[in-house]
Amino acid sequence: MDDLTAYAAALNAAMEGMAEGGIPIGAAIVADGKLLATGRNQRVQRGSAIHHGETNCIENAGRLPASVYAQSTIYTTLSPCHMCAGTILLYKIPRVVIGDNVSFEVSEDLLRSHGVEVVVLNDAETTRMFEAWMTANPRLWNEDIGED
Amino acid sequence: MDDLTAYAAALNAAMEGMAEGGIPIGAAIVADGKLLATGRNQRVQRGSAIHHGETNCIENAGRLPASVYAQSTIYTTLSPCHMCAGTILLYKIPRVVIGDNVSFEVSEDLLRSHGVEVVVLNDAETTRMFEAWMTANPRLWNEDIGED
Repeated sequence: MDDLTAYAAALNAAMEGMAEGGIPIGAAIVADGKLLATGRNQRVQRGSAIHHGETNCIENAGRLPASVYAQSTIYTTLSPCHMCAGTILLYKIPRVVIGDNVSFEVSEDLLRSHGVEVVVLNDAETTRMFEAWMTANPRLWNEDIGED
Repeated sequence: MDDLTAYAAALNAAMEGMAEGGIPIGAAIVADGKLLATGRNQRVQRGSAIHHGETNCIENAGRLPASVYAQSTIYTTLSPCHMCAGTILLYKIPRVVIGDNVSFEVSEDLLRSHGVEVVVLNDAETTRMFEAWMTANPRLWNEDIGED
């Protein structure tokens, strides 16, 4: 599975979240060329403070041995927050592919400082979608990143 | 509620986890002198990769405004992994009280570099309990921190 195909699964998960009335951030994890799981932010749907796109994806992938994480790539529509970056570091996921880091970016230097390869697609479709959503939902977005 | 009383709630959550056959790491969050929630690692109980003591505690506390996190302290029996430290940074929790950082410690410098006050209790009871558990359950512990 190539990066653009895997990224499409993450973006599709984000759009699924939006259709549910949720925060439209999605993720996908691929190891050995196989899609293991997708995930999407669940703040609205489950009232969750910890199910962001990436963490929900990792949760959906289930309990995995370190050797699987070590050869995986995680795809995310939005540059990871500190929690999601920390989850990537916990499981030593070596590669992150990001659709949009214009709307939000706090952790890419931290990831790189731990040897994680950070690839930014600069996907204009994702940025347009997310900025339109943020503009329409500022309170929900601020809550999701711990701001007033 | 003073630190030792709040810490006792975190340690009690860890012991509850052990009684369930889980990984004995617990947490508690206190704001404005009031216990908001406790949490415990749920890797065994829920097959979870993201419910560590601290993240489960944050999840159990529910969706909170930034102003509540901003005046809170999180108590944890074990020094936070990268994911849990990232969760503390995401929500700008200003103070962390840790029972044991002898058995595990990876994130305290990162927390301090973001202005988080890190208090280590060096609680010998917690360290004895956790080291005995780790010695008896090395594979489960390694899985929880993303090691082989």
